[in-house]
Amino acid sequence: MKINSNYLNLKDNYLFADVAKKSSEFAEKNPTVKVINLGIGDVTLPLCPEVVKAMQYAVLEMGKKETFKGYGPYQGYDFLRSEIKNYYARRNVELDLDEIFVSDGAKSDVSNILDVFSKENSVMVPDPVYPVYVDTNVMDGRKIQYINANEENDFLPLPDKSIHSDIIYLCSPNNPTGAVYNYKQLKQWVDYALDNKAIILFDSAYEAFISDDSLPRSIFEIEGANKCAIEFCSFSKTAGFTGVRCGYTIVPTELTFEGNSINNLWFRRQSTKFNGVSYVVQRGAAAVFSSEGMNQVKENINYYKENAKLIAKVLTERKIYFVGGKNSPYIWFKCPDGITSWEFFDFLLEKAYVIGTPGSGFGKNGESFFRLTSFGERTDILNAAGRLKNVL
Amino acid sequence: MKINSNYLNLKDNYLFADVAKKSSEFAEKNPTVKVINLGIGDVTLPLCPEVVKAMQYAVLEMGKKETFKGYGPYQGYDFLRSEIKNYYARRNVELDLDEIFVSDGAKSDVSNILDVFSKENSVMVPDPVYPVYVDTNVMDGRKIQYINANEENDFLPLPDKSIHSDIIYLCSPNNPTGAVYNYKQLKQWVDYALDNKAIILFDSAYEAFISDDSLPRSIFEIEGANKCAIEFCSFSKTAGFTGVRCGYTIVPTELTFEGNSINNLWFRRQSTKFNGVSYVVQRGAAAVFSSEGMNQVKENINYYKENAKLIAKVLTERKIYFVGGKNSPYIWFKCPDGITSWEFFDFLLEKAYVIGTPGSGFGKNGESFFRLTSFGERTDILNAAGRLKNVL
Repeated sequence: MKINSNYLNLKDNYLFADVAKKSSEFAEKNPTVKVINLGIGDVTLPLCPEVVKAMQYAVLEMGKKETFKGYGPYQGYDFLRSEIKNYYARRNVELDLDEIFVSDGAKSDVSNILDVFSKENSVMVPDPVYPVYVDTNVMDGRKIQYINANEENDFLPLPDKSIHSDIIYLCSPNNPTGAVYNYKQLKQWVDYALDNKAIILFDSAYEAFISDDSLPRSIFEIEGANKCAIEFCSFSKTAGFTGVRCGYTIVPTELTFEGNSINNLWFRRQSTKFNGVSYVVQRGAAAVFSSEGMNQVKENINYYKENAKLIAKVLTERKIYFVGGKNSPYIWFKCPDGITSWEFFDFLLEKAYVIGTPGSGFGKNGESFFRLTSFGERTDILNAAGRLKNVL
Repeated sequence: MKINSNYLNLKDNYLFADVAKKSSEFAEKNPTVKVINLGIGDVTLPLCPEVVKAMQYAVLEMGKKETFKGYGPYQGYDFLRSEIKNYYARRNVELDLDEIFVSDGAKSDVSNILDVFSKENSVMVPDPVYPVYVDTNVMDGRKIQYINANEENDFLPLPDKSIHSDIIYLCSPNNPTGAVYNYKQLKQWVDYALDNKAIILFDSAYEAFISDDSLPRSIFEIEGANKCAIEFCSFSKTAGFTGVRCGYTIVPTELTFEGNSINNLWFRRQSTKFNGVSYVVQRGAAAVFSSEGMNQVKENINYYKENAKLIAKVLTERKIYFVGGKNSPYIWFKCPDGITSWEFFDFLLEKAYVIGTPGSGFGKNGESFFRLTSFGERTDILNAAGRLKNVL
């Protein structure tokens, strides 16, 4: 039996392990110091009451013969997909229920979608990048081209018409940078994809953090996108579902390549290799879209966004270049005096007792940049902001 | 962008769609007749009270800041994996926690495991077969060899030493036939795999239906299996989790091919492409292993098994050849007078008002065989048994 030898080409990424190691070494040497962690990529606020209520009720239903649910529909229950359809309709994006696939999370879908594409396609990913886009393609042996996201383009790279690519990854609001594409910029990507007969894999996991109405929250707000794009979204950051596990993927019925419907291929993939999402979880996800649910999750998002604002304020005052922090939970800034990301990590930990994430861990263009997140407690954020102000 | 053209080689399987169509046509023509469905492959009894209690509590935990859980461990929480470890230990199978991977279901894992194997491997599947084993390999373009499961070997094919294969699928208790391998037979498979440097993918989703202590419930009860096998199990049939979604996969640390640890490769696959199972679901799964939980799920399994016994009794009385029905929820029998599976389907529906599944839908060796399941209501089973007796 032979293994998939592409796995041997995967690079180990010790970013978060190294951060954890350095942090615990510091804590050991300085037991009385209160270190504040602004490196967290996970939500900290609990599920909102509407979601809890819906999940409680669903668990009870599962315990009674009359209301028990066995295997559910592969694509997800209509009660949830109708809510997602309505959610998109509010932004004037019309979807059919058949175009909506519910899953256990955007990470699963953004990875598994590659099953239906040939290994011969070339792939374009921005640098810095969410490592999953790279690793999943290395596992398949696809050729990867990087495009530079940097200070020059405010970490929002635009298509280079001289380069051809078949599969394009875009993430907006971006992880790790927090930068958000506007309509005009996304239109350029859609046009490029159509010209190149390429597909855009659009990761909109952080769309709920966009409050600026002049910015698109879905690629399908762009004309032509339904002929070249798939969108991956998630309840993880929208409603604190990182431990509940639910996401959804939009595959337009008009999306065809070589005469084949990608929607059909994806349905075939999911119905063969997947058996749907827990009924209890789907009931929780549907509750997010009720008017009370929407208000409650928005309150949590606003809490995180207010945190981001407090950090961003310090950087603005100190005239430090940054992106994100506005329509995103992430703040991505330039390390002062041209020092490296890891040098700044040490500096911040030792001088301000604040932990963040070295940008170089996300790709070569991340060198000399640094990421802070807003998923912490308000009091910690206020303290951290004060400390940052003192050392920057 | 090119699609994965292997998808174009997939055969559509209309088995259950055709069954549904014929059934509803009959119901329309015969509105006063009560048709009994013994084709159901899904559980019908609700979650047991211990599971409901645990899930209720977990939902409440998720709603409080102090007990909220975000991203969980990729392989599953220790509280659940420890229970699984203890469950195996009761059968004298010693596992490390690192060898246990919790997932959203056996179907996902038995499909996704192929990611870590080369496409060049040859695959061996029994015929008749659970279609997922075939379709997932067609999607990857692997060469498939069929081995005959038939009346001659009581639907328990043994290895043919003259044929080499790299990847071997075994399912015991079997879906669709209900046949169960004994120790001696499984030992032959383990020896064959070791001789051929092959891997056995062992699907034990129905192991909880085995009450005969002389039969193995895990491939790891066989000496040498930890060097050649992976086991896939699930709470779907054990505890009625088909709509809750939880399974687990055992990948021994001693399992290496070409010097590579399959456990490490699978961890890399799962940590890259998957983000774990809902905390609430994992709490429910752990409750299955409490002493009350175990008693409650056993009660449900015994209910289904008693159903199976009632159907099997009729076949024995009528001297009809069958397998299963004892340590399995499935009964697989020979259609009388050598008629085809579909002819028997029509006969049974028209004469006895009973729906079953034509064996030919599971492969060529299923022709002239028929599957009934025991997942129905007792009163329905009793009625169906009486009707079967009259027409057979």
